[in-house]
Amino acid sequence: MRTVPPIERLVANLKRLPGIGEKSATRLAFHLLGASESRVQELADAILRVKKDVVLCEECFDLTDRSPCAICRDPQRDAASLCVVEEPADLAAVERAGGFRGRYHVLGGVLSPIDGMGPEALRIRELEARVVRGGVREVILATNPNAEGDATAHLVADRLRPSGVRLTRIACGMPLGGDLEYADHVTVGRSLANRREID
Amino acid sequence: MRTVPPIERLVANLKRLPGIGEKSATRLAFHLLGASESRVQELADAILRVKKDVVLCEECFDLTDRSPCAICRDPQRDAASLCVVEEPADLAAVERAGGFRGRYHVLGGVLSPIDGMGPEALRIRELEARVVRGGVREVILATNPNAEGDATAHLVADRLRPSGVRLTRIACGMPLGGDLEYADHVTVGRSLANRREID
Repeated sequence: MRTVPPIERLVANLKRLPGIGEKSATRLAFHLLGASESRVQELADAILRVKKDVVLCEECFDLTDRSPCAICRDPQRDAASLCVVEEPADLAAVERAGGFRGRYHVLGGVLSPIDGMGPEALRIRELEARVVRGGVREVILATNPNAEGDATAHLVADRLRPSGVRLTRIACGMPLGGDLEYADHVTVGRSLANRREID
Repeated sequence: MRTVPPIERLVANLKRLPGIGEKSATRLAFHLLGASESRVQELADAILRVKKDVVLCEECFDLTDRSPCAICRDPQRDAASLCVVEEPADLAAVERAGGFRGRYHVLGGVLSPIDGMGPEALRIRELEARVVRGGVREVILATNPNAEGDATAHLVADRLRPSGVRLTRIACGMPLGGDLEYADHVTVGRSLANRREID
């Protein structure tokens, strides 16, 4: 059997990444073998630097290279509107969508008793502190529309209700360009339940 | 807009890899941010080491950490049978299939005038030298079954014909588990043309 230890080692490391199987890992390894020394060096540097140079924002707990992060520092962003998300990747998705001019709060996960994630593992106390400090009028609960995300949204809402802040939840329905025939029944059901007047 | 330079840089680097788009790159970057320091260091090391520790085998031109490679050094592998492939990844595919007990010759590409790959860019002279040196009885042309691969196989066969060595080409037909209804017409045509007696 043909084994070249440095290649096997790279393939084994690449295979541990999400969405990368044996075939993709082998393909990537051969690609890197054919790439220029400088390109490969640059990739390795970028991988190492991301762990060293990225920290959590002390305000919103998003990933940033400087705390407070660019959004929390930006005076143009409305501090009265807080969008609560599970993870930094979700924050990035909301930013990509554009249109939201408020600020964020990253919980750092969702309630998931199976994975040992209870309320104390999430940054709910930090969110309460931000709301209590004042200046926040609306908290938009943008956890994912599934069982864990819904449970987390309800828990956070219960905790914030005494503060009197406005609590909203992102809309759930048919995705744009979707097809009723192929959508799952829960999505179709929510899409009907959340129907709006045509004006 | 939210930009964290170390993350953007990693995403930009990952996006240059084959089969990795914006979404996968972002997903991989967030995964690496969440991974342990040692896992990330190990991946970066593996990437750097693969370029430094891997060389070409002086015999067959496969990638190896020590030349001649393990297959060329192995006395159990039949030196009378040479399988000619385009790239090291193709050699790896033949080895994975198992069953072939001969040795290899990696051409380093295929004829492709558009990409400036002429016969002199391939390791055909090195292959001729191996055949002329003696001991080779059969050369199996295992370039890919497409226009460039077929042209390359014919060119190599023309060059080796004077040596009197046996020249064969890998079979082309329906893949196992394939469906005639969904196969492309060239494959179906070749599958019919290459039909064999049932014994």
